[in-house]
Amino acid sequence: MTAETQSRSLLLREHEVTVDDAAEIPTPGPTQVLIEVAAVGICGSDVHYFDHGRIADFVVREPLVLGHEASGTIRAIGSAVTDREIGQRVALEPQETCGRCAQCLAGRYNLCPDVRFFATPPIHGAFAQYVVLESHRAHPVPDELSDEAAALIEPLSVGVWANQKANVQPGDRVLITGAGPVGLVCADVARARGAAWVGVSDTNAYRLGVAKARGASAALNAADGPLVEQIDPVDVILECSGAAPAIRGAFAVAAPAARVVLVGMGAPDLELPVALIQIKEIWVTGTFRYANCYPAAISLAASGVVDLDSLVTGRFGLSEVAEALQASKTDPHSLKPVVYPNQAG
Amino acid sequence: MTAETQSRSLLLREHEVTVDDAAEIPTPGPTQVLIEVAAVGICGSDVHYFDHGRIADFVVREPLVLGHEASGTIRAIGSAVTDREIGQRVALEPQETCGRCAQCLAGRYNLCPDVRFFATPPIHGAFAQYVVLESHRAHPVPDELSDEAAALIEPLSVGVWANQKANVQPGDRVLITGAGPVGLVCADVARARGAAWVGVSDTNAYRLGVAKARGASAALNAADGPLVEQIDPVDVILECSGAAPAIRGAFAVAAPAARVVLVGMGAPDLELPVALIQIKEIWVTGTFRYANCYPAAISLAASGVVDLDSLVTGRFGLSEVAEALQASKTDPHSLKPVVYPNQAG
Amino acid sequence: MTAETQSRSLLLREHEVTVDDAAEIPTPGPTQVLIEVAAVGICGSDVHYFDHGRIADFVVREPLVLGHEASGTIRAIGSAVTDREIGQRVALEPQETCGRCAQCLAGRYNLCPDVRFFATPPIHGAFAQYVVLESHRAHPVPDELSDEAAALIEPLSVGVWANQKANVQPGDRVLITGAGPVGLVCADVARARGAAWVGVSDTNAYRLGVAKARGASAALNAADGPLVEQIDPVDVILECSGAAPAIRGAFAVAAPAARVVLVGMGAPDLELPVALIQIKEIWVTGTFRYANCYPAAISLAASGVVDLDSLVTGRFGLSEVAEALQASKTDPHSLKPVVYPNQAG
Amino acid sequence: MTAETQSRSLLLREHEVTVDDAAEIPTPGPTQVLIEVAAVGICGSDVHYFDHGRIADFVVREPLVLGHEASGTIRAIGSAVTDREIGQRVALEPQETCGRCAQCLAGRYNLCPDVRFFATPPIHGAFAQYVVLESHRAHPVPDELSDEAAALIEPLSVGVWANQKANVQPGDRVLITGAGPVGLVCADVARARGAAWVGVSDTNAYRLGVAKARGASAALNAADGPLVEQIDPVDVILECSGAAPAIRGAFAVAAPAARVVLVGMGAPDLELPVALIQIKEIWVTGTFRYANCYPAAISLAASGVVDLDSLVTGRFGLSEVAEALQASKTDPHSLKPVVYPNQAG
Repeated sequence: MTAETQSRSLLLREHEVTVDDAAEIPTPGPTQVLIEVAAVGICGSDVHYFDHGRIADFVVREPLVLGHEASGTIRAIGSAVTDREIGQRVALEPQETCGRCAQCLAGRYNLCPDVRFFATPPIHGAFAQYVVLESHRAHPVPDELSDEAAALIEPLSVGVWANQKANVQPGDRVLITGAGPVGLVCADVARARGAAWVGVSDTNAYRLGVAKARGASAALNAADGPLVEQIDPVDVILECSGAAPAIRGAFAVAAPAARVVLVGMGAPDLELPVALIQIKEIWVTGTFRYANCYPAAISLAASGVVDLDSLVTGRFGLSEVAEALQASKTDPHSLKPVVYPNQAG
Repeated sequence: MTAETQSRSLLLREHEVTVDDAAEIPTPGPTQVLIEVAAVGICGSDVHYFDHGRIADFVVREPLVLGHEASGTIRAIGSAVTDREIGQRVALEPQETCGRCAQCLAGRYNLCPDVRFFATPPIHGAFAQYVVLESHRAHPVPDELSDEAAALIEPLSVGVWANQKANVQPGDRVLITGAGPVGLVCADVARARGAAWVGVSDTNAYRLGVAKARGASAALNAADGPLVEQIDPVDVILECSGAAPAIRGAFAVAAPAARVVLVGMGAPDLELPVALIQIKEIWVTGTFRYANCYPAAISLAASGVVDLDSLVTGRFGLSEVAEALQASKTDPHSLKPVVYPNQAG
Repeated sequence: MTAETQSRSLLLREHEVTVDDAAEIPTPGPTQVLIEVAAVGICGSDVHYFDHGRIADFVVREPLVLGHEASGTIRAIGSAVTDREIGQRVALEPQETCGRCAQCLAGRYNLCPDVRFFATPPIHGAFAQYVVLESHRAHPVPDELSDEAAALIEPLSVGVWANQKANVQPGDRVLITGAGPVGLVCADVARARGAAWVGVSDTNAYRLGVAKARGASAALNAADGPLVEQIDPVDVILECSGAAPAIRGAFAVAAPAARVVLVGMGAPDLELPVALIQIKEIWVTGTFRYANCYPAAISLAASGVVDLDSLVTGRFGLSEVAEALQASKTDPHSLKPVVYPNQAG
Repeated sequence: MTAETQSRSLLLREHEVTVDDAAEIPTPGPTQVLIEVAAVGICGSDVHYFDHGRIADFVVREPLVLGHEASGTIRAIGSAVTDREIGQRVALEPQETCGRCAQCLAGRYNLCPDVRFFATPPIHGAFAQYVVLESHRAHPVPDELSDEAAALIEPLSVGVWANQKANVQPGDRVLITGAGPVGLVCADVARARGAAWVGVSDTNAYRLGVAKARGASAALNAADGPLVEQIDPVDVILECSGAAPAIRGAFAVAAPAARVVLVGMGAPDLELPVALIQIKEIWVTGTFRYANCYPAAISLAASGVVDLDSLVTGRFGLSEVAEALQASKTDPHSLKPVVYPNQAG
């Protein structure tokens, strides 16, 4: 345990993560809250920064605290904060946006050019004992939600956003390509919106089993041949694999006027069947994080409609994060490792 | 039982219904199917025609067969029908539209000025052994659906349509005013779309109990005072009572940018708080039947997300319909009486 | 002219307006700009506060500076302002919103519960030599726009918002009820969006003449009988009169699936034909100011598509505002009086 | 001139078109009208069939009458037609759809799998003296529209549809890539919807001049370098060239949340910058003909907002069509040749 004024955190420096005891507990600004971090999920992007030191144009130049799927408890509030209280358990929406640009004013704050997002260089993340956050980004959670579930409201929000972009409706046939944590919650949310059929594809048999156990209408092994030969056309495709064959295949299996949402990131450029987009008038878009999704995600998890706890496949202390990052790459049975910055280990 | 070429039906003539054995089994046109009717739900509009002989400008001038919530089995198909087969069990979408007017071409066929709707004078309904229907209005149902449930796809479609108009989303707080059959299925569909909170109000304690048993977040007795004093603001109100206080009260409890959908029909003119509509920028609309809702309704019922069978509160033969109509008016425990035109009784 | 450190303004106190020379030029906060006011349009709400000392729950308890349709030139900028420069001519979007509530985050900042709007008690308005404003609410205007036109971007934004709510499309038949300044610009914007037919109704012959001169397809005298007897059904009604007969009549003349937007404020409660809303599935909503409309309004005015200068029907100095307020009530030929706080008079 | 019972037409057979005098004047079915064709525009697809005998999977196996941009006069009506009269001048919407499939019922009849479209094998087109059409597809035109303009309502509808898909709004910056007839009318419609800035790009200097003369805010020569280096980001791109560099470049110049509509057909597969689609959350779709666009197109042309007559760059009789098809390929100044099947020549 660190001294009372220190906030232990984990710093990434060139493929190495080391525990840092030197930082002081941050002081919240007038509109911010101080949060004692409870649990932090490890995301593929954390692993990517650990391995490659960059994602696209975001390069880790200075030591960086990773982690952006976090929950915790408010321990102090800024002088102007009236909407939060000390002691509240919260899910952290890990971004700060300007509130003044055209994107923010239009309700698309996730596209704010000045967004500061946790664990995206040079902004520190949540593998730390304490973090500060604008008060309105600290979303209170009910007791029904465990610390782990509250942390995983972040990836669930990705699924809420993808489904919202696709406008999934009762009666829709929905295909999710990729059965990682994001694909799985995308499927959960599609079901929660009343989709008539929710199929999930992957090449990892374990993950397909998880998808099936969570309620997928069909678990489709992409290695068994093109999906267009395995299933009838679908109204919505939520692409969560980032894999080129999955992305291309999505258009083949799309019904007229289908909506295709590219959630998983893969190659920056890809050959797409533009003639199909035209002939079927398919709508295509991508998602960049999410906006205004936490309240819906919290309600879906708190009501039990989406089970987040069962996604957790490992529990680690700060000093074990290197191991956790490694596991999430090599263990085919790993879905969501969770880190507890305030627990010994 | 009538002779093989006769189709027994029930005719409404000035507050009286009588069994008619004189009509012949109709012959389907080239694009129609002949359906042997299995079950028919009794709707409030049937009761209204029985009592008053009219609804608004629709007046019963000639003997009329009532009933428009029907299921059955295809017994013959027209010469040009390729999309249906003899023997298929179907839910009847009881309308024929022109397909050529601006409304039909825009996908709003429920607003077709030339619509011919079952049991709306002078178009006969389904309290008959046999009816004909355009093939694409006979929606195949899976074995999971009972005859009664297949009949009640019709009122469920009303709920699907109302929810679609309101664009109910995960995270929304939804209030349904009126816990009759339509209000109950509206609540069911709101839950099926992931609404965070679904409250139902009525003054009938039995119906409130049913709402609660079906999963309502709150069952609110409107007699206990204005809803605005009972609950927090809501994002959506589906008004299913047609009662003036409920309609007016909806606007008081509406959150900014709320959507209010007027489903229940009541007085043609009503004092509304227009200043609230303006200050909160509330969206208000009404529903007139539904369009393109049967496939979604069938999937919601077939998957068990919406339980239609439990709405049935009485079973009647053709000769007992007068009794059934009466019961649905006077028995506070009556929800949905069902008529079986091909069963003795 | 006041001393260099004073900002002369006009204070409303119980039906009287008096020039006040005592106030100092305000200092912009870090994210604000100081604007030397050029021109200010007089709005019906200014007249209403002058006459009644209140609008609904907003009561003038302390001396209040009126005026919220303003243009000017930036004379100083706050320490953190990087998006504006001294010397820029701007149209003032006269509101400050929190940027953190659910409404702001969703892009509906006009519904922010903490909005501070010019000339709405207790927030001072723009009948003053100098005002401060958040930098992003000071919208730069091109040289093509006169000071008067730049001031009238505010009411034009009301028209842009109403048309956007109604989703006016090429081919639509649009009716505007009420030919005051807001009705006239609503008609202008409807034409600018490609509406096929734009009719304007009023009972003031002069205003109908102006509407016609601006390009209305039809100028309809509401005194000649119900509009439903004068014209074919319309797809959109923008109600800008606040008059009960106009509001009720709108529903009679509405086509199926029409959109009715209540812009003009009148009685808080009103009998509406709810059965028509239901049978025709009419969409009804109201507007409360506007959100994100200034850029579009500026482009429409700067390109000459909407002519704002011709709306100006009187020019007044600060000391003449009482006279101007009076004129706008009693002169049937008055449309938009404009006040110049920095000009002698 | 042919005998009174003959309808002279032009048949395409393996790269050759020949006048055919053998066909009889067709008899309209009960819901159809007989139209004496006045003018027919030549479309790129006509040229493509002439050159290649196919477009994608549509192969000319039997002699085919080309031409689908047509106007004419109703000369006879079917027995059940009540919405049209003999003598009416009409623009032909050259398609027949089933009215019963999921696409038709949803208002997307252009995606009807059973659509029968003029001049798409094996359906004959309008290079003929007489054609029959479902009555509701024969749209009456006012006297303001010339025969040529009435024929060109067809390509104008393509522009109306593309703009509708992109939801072009006042204030939007719109880029049209490709200044052929469709690109030019797309630009016209964008202006008619109030777009703030409408730029047009091409490599043909003559066409850029035409774009500029029609009112383009900027005429951009794509040969001068990537558009992203020539202009600021845009909210909407209507891609009308089908050229790979234009399509790829569109994403580079797209603003956050931009809408990209692929109108021009080119290579069936194309490398697209999917990471940009994701990071900017760009919406992409394509258009396949149009649905419900004729009324709007007619109103835009009749009011003079869109000038169709000036697109006509050549006038030909039936026997000169081979020459016209040739010209439209080789003459850089050719925009829209028009054929007059009932005029000598």
